[in-house]
Amino acid sequence: MRSYEVKNRTNVDDIKALRLITAIKTPYLPDGRFDLEAYDALVNMQINGGAEAVIVGGTTGEGQLMSWDEHIMLIGHTVNCFGSRIKVIGNTGSNSTREAIHATEQGFAVGMHAALHINPYYGKTSKEGMIAHFESVLSMGPAIVYNVPSRTSQDIPPQVMHSLAQSTNFAGVKECVGPERIKQYTDNNIVVWSGNDDQCHDSRWLFGATGVISVTSNLIPGLIGQLMFKGKNSSLNAKLMPLIEWLFQEPNPIGLNTALAQLGVARPVFRLPYVPLPLEKRIEFVRIVKEIGRENFVGDKDVQVLDDDDFILLGRY
Amino acid sequence: MRSYEVKNRTNVDDIKALRLITAIKTPYLPDGRFDLEAYDALVNMQINGGAEAVIVGGTTGEGQLMSWDEHIMLIGHTVNCFGSRIKVIGNTGSNSTREAIHATEQGFAVGMHAALHINPYYGKTSKEGMIAHFESVLSMGPAIVYNVPSRTSQDIPPQVMHSLAQSTNFAGVKECVGPERIKQYTDNNIVVWSGNDDQCHDSRWLFGATGVISVTSNLIPGLIGQLMFKGKNSSLNAKLMPLIEWLFQEPNPIGLNTALAQLGVARPVFRLPYVPLPLEKRIEFVRIVKEIGRENFVGDKDVQVLDDDDFILLGRY
Amino acid sequence: MRSYEVKNRTNVDDIKALRLITAIKTPYLPDGRFDLEAYDALVNMQINGGAEAVIVGGTTGEGQLMSWDEHIMLIGHTVNCFGSRIKVIGNTGSNSTREAIHATEQGFAVGMHAALHINPYYGKTSKEGMIAHFESVLSMGPAIVYNVPSRTSQDIPPQVMHSLAQSTNFAGVKECVGPERIKQYTDNNIVVWSGNDDQCHDSRWLFGATGVISVTSNLIPGLIGQLMFKGKNSSLNAKLMPLIEWLFQEPNPIGLNTALAQLGVARPVFRLPYVPLPLEKRIEFVRIVKEIGRENFVGDKDVQVLDDDDFILLGRY
Amino acid sequence: MRSYEVKNRTNVDDIKALRLITAIKTPYLPDGRFDLEAYDALVNMQINGGAEAVIVGGTTGEGQLMSWDEHIMLIGHTVNCFGSRIKVIGNTGSNSTREAIHATEQGFAVGMHAALHINPYYGKTSKEGMIAHFESVLSMGPAIVYNVPSRTSQDIPPQVMHSLAQSTNFAGVKECVGPERIKQYTDNNIVVWSGNDDQCHDSRWLFGATGVISVTSNLIPGLIGQLMFKGKNSSLNAKLMPLIEWLFQEPNPIGLNTALAQLGVARPVFRLPYVPLPLEKRIEFVRIVKEIGRENFVGDKDVQVLDDDDFILLGRY
Repeated sequence: MRSYEVKNRTNVDDIKALRLITAIKTPYLPDGRFDLEAYDALVNMQINGGAEAVIVGGTTGEGQLMSWDEHIMLIGHTVNCFGSRIKVIGNTGSNSTREAIHATEQGFAVGMHAALHINPYYGKTSKEGMIAHFESVLSMGPAIVYNVPSRTSQDIPPQVMHSLAQSTNFAGVKECVGPERIKQYTDNNIVVWSGNDDQCHDSRWLFGATGVISVTSNLIPGLIGQLMFKGKNSSLNAKLMPLIEWLFQEPNPIGLNTALAQLGVARPVFRLPYVPLPLEKRIEFVRIVKEIGRENFVGDKDVQVLDDDDFILLGRY
Repeated sequence: MRSYEVKNRTNVDDIKALRLITAIKTPYLPDGRFDLEAYDALVNMQINGGAEAVIVGGTTGEGQLMSWDEHIMLIGHTVNCFGSRIKVIGNTGSNSTREAIHATEQGFAVGMHAALHINPYYGKTSKEGMIAHFESVLSMGPAIVYNVPSRTSQDIPPQVMHSLAQSTNFAGVKECVGPERIKQYTDNNIVVWSGNDDQCHDSRWLFGATGVISVTSNLIPGLIGQLMFKGKNSSLNAKLMPLIEWLFQEPNPIGLNTALAQLGVARPVFRLPYVPLPLEKRIEFVRIVKEIGRENFVGDKDVQVLDDDDFILLGRY
Repeated sequence: MRSYEVKNRTNVDDIKALRLITAIKTPYLPDGRFDLEAYDALVNMQINGGAEAVIVGGTTGEGQLMSWDEHIMLIGHTVNCFGSRIKVIGNTGSNSTREAIHATEQGFAVGMHAALHINPYYGKTSKEGMIAHFESVLSMGPAIVYNVPSRTSQDIPPQVMHSLAQSTNFAGVKECVGPERIKQYTDNNIVVWSGNDDQCHDSRWLFGATGVISVTSNLIPGLIGQLMFKGKNSSLNAKLMPLIEWLFQEPNPIGLNTALAQLGVARPVFRLPYVPLPLEKRIEFVRIVKEIGRENFVGDKDVQVLDDDDFILLGRY
Repeated sequence: MRSYEVKNRTNVDDIKALRLITAIKTPYLPDGRFDLEAYDALVNMQINGGAEAVIVGGTTGEGQLMSWDEHIMLIGHTVNCFGSRIKVIGNTGSNSTREAIHATEQGFAVGMHAALHINPYYGKTSKEGMIAHFESVLSMGPAIVYNVPSRTSQDIPPQVMHSLAQSTNFAGVKECVGPERIKQYTDNNIVVWSGNDDQCHDSRWLFGATGVISVTSNLIPGLIGQLMFKGKNSSLNAKLMPLIEWLFQEPNPIGLNTALAQLGVARPVFRLPYVPLPLEKRIEFVRIVKEIGRENFVGDKDVQVLDDDDFILLGRY
């Protein structure tokens, strides 16, 4: 009995109930280390905006560019500063089973409330391998399984997901394949979060999704919260589409990083291989902000168009 | 002038001339560490079979399951033991630019002859980001750029490849997209290695490829060598197809790992998330070996059908 | 303003007031990983016994045998589970300035209340080098400076200590050189904790020390607490001497590890280079426990004499 | 049979025969990474000056400030560039048995000819613990055991050394305790290298030492070579004393780092906790160089007095 850790352990039902989860951005200092001050401020904006949880070091937070000690530190830091106000979900998944096991053990040890797990991208594996991989970590605590074939090159088939869903620690699926797949799960009482902001409204209100794991909510937590908490709202959903399309014109988090820099919420520091969107897109962002209303976005500085020279791109970080 | 390292530096033309490059398997001890004795024996079999180079820690060699210190050690070890007899190409690519820079510096420092570089899989990036990523490492020494959208979820478009090809260190492309793409490059004097064993014969003799970076050559270096060195041989190519199809029925290196274990060349130890092919497929392998002839395969033990219990599957390694 | 972390930041005066600080042992599982369940139980025994703080990963806790990610994880874990009940002091010192900087940043990020810093042992340096080393980390948060020439081979001279004491984050000194040195500091209003259990009583009541950073309190927190909290008590002090001498007959934590295993509080697992005390010393321990009274020791199992075969000694952990 | 690695394996007798071994300095780039160009040049100067081996990443080479991946890379690099001309001895010792095992395995895998092993400094252990520690690594290949109580705080007693000397891989002792201890070993046919430059001449010609593991030879390999190769030469020995005393007035490698910077052989970059000697000592060095003769020192630039501002001191490296 790991009494003290277990006593604090989140019930999986508390994870299943989450509706607005922000895949939080990781801001950087000019030398490439984490800018924890900006990070703390951004997490606080999320809490004030209504987010119920954050994913720490997801693809949006650039976990793939972190060393594992940075990654676990950021999870521990988030728990320490915000763990009583928001659920902290660590992206402790990996395409290496060893790394996933080690990181998940460490993440729960430092207090994360749940883990996000991905199937082995790039290296890929067989269905039996997928199941063995996930089963290596599912015993450790509440977990969300993430399916995003457009990144992993390999769909987690429903057959595998149904097998994983037998685990008492299985909280649900972050699904990016689309409404039909989501409905297939929700019809079977599997909790689903949409992994696509452009589909989150319909997924929630038409296809049974519980909520969203959102990128866009980094920028407008309150409005995404409206979409998730306040019932069908197609006009708001439509109004946000240009922003969402702008954000995802290049692989995420390129758009988000560019946006938060222009909002003055994060320094304009990029860890390669990410580079900012070009000038004409940056001008377009300012226009979109004004259409939606600056007051709906995080931060309190004027939104500005940054010059190419304002950005710091780092290969060694 | 880094005189001693540079004096040993391989000329990029020596890399461009390679025809048979084996993406070498990494064998393991029962506790998951590298089995260097089995590795050394396998590399020696490749040399004796005619391979001109090895890729160390590629996806076949499960670089994605190595810690970087293991990975660089294996490159240094291979250089130390075999560097005068075969070209050693380190897979020092990564989806993290920091890791690619660090590993590539270290790989060249310990004597690798060339690097293999991948575009940022999983995290992905924009075309500008891809170029910035590759340019961070191309200055360090001879490099092969690897395009495998079925793993990375993102094609390296020809426009990006042509830009990279301007670098004096650019040796060529390992291309998996297919014959048409290969021809497009070879028509423009870009060196190409086929990344698909089932297409390597035609790619070489019909579409201008220089050679192959092969998985199958781990098993039958001499026969793949015949395909690459001895001119068109459609009947041999056809004869090998069942083996190649067997090897790639599940994501590589699942088939290869199963095969080398049954040939007695590597211990039946798997690092998760890889698991062996099921029994009926293992039986089928023995049949295929007999059809092609045991004497054409590496190792000198009888090929056998292993039981499920013979395999050791490791999550902590 | 790193608002959330800083808001939680411990005032240096709260560190200065600590009287009983346990240099907590790290228990292991049979494979060498941390036994967090046993650890949590031991920390809880410390709290119940009156300890006001723990040093995580000190030499007693075998920080020198931890990888840094293990070390920071254990600090974060302790904060997460016990941070509201006890002060958590991370031994984030190192003989490498880079490591000390990185670990101290990470330790404060995951919520430790203070750092313990050592001068560069083994490599050693000049007085100017010592000062530069400590100044690299003193800006980050409350710190205790540790002087133990019998481990570091180099005394931190008072001149250096007085220079460090100018920092607002300087909480005080863990001093092992002896009473005279302690008095020299306390006469100058520098807070001192005795680093030698055999001298802690006199250091506190005769030489002005504020308290002790204790090894023995792992075993008998309540009795060491009596020595620190309840005024001069030479007879109790004398009664504990045989235990203390037993504990330190070989380099710490060899005795402590042996003792906690025989008390059933930690598994009998040793990370090399530590090995248990020999049988006759283990028999002697049981006699000492009975003289002091089993009820004064942590744990509730019978104290037993373990056989040589009961111990697991690990070189790979 | 690890055939290829073992085939290259150095015979322990070849290690026992070495007379002049330089504990090579590690030069740095302004950002703190290794300056491999300067390193290669310095190793080459050693070879030309008559050194028969180098210790890579000793305390002189600041192994204690390296990450292990840097350390193993430097060993592999040295083997790759110079392994056919000079013996490469990796300092793969550690106070953590796990680290010593891992580093020694890796060091031999990348081709080092022998290992240097230290007893567990700082953490210390019992005699039984020392033996268990050394036995964990002695099976891997030729090893020199290093005794330097003024760094480790713990003497390796002759009883332990005699026990280790039973191993077929035991090459000998680097001994810093002094002539009497050396004679005790050499009388018993244990090979000894002096670890004190000021005693190396007498140790070799009066007390039976085979040679020296030298710091001073970084600067004047030819003259230290004369002391080791050419018979008794008390006048040369006396002539070098002022230089040796200058070098060791502060913990090594502070003096050496300062000297090589002023000779223009290494950039004036220090990794903390090392800082350069003060101006008056730097002036004194130039005088000493002139007395001994610039031509006897490595490098071909004029020796100069550097200003405080010329030095770069790095905490993050």
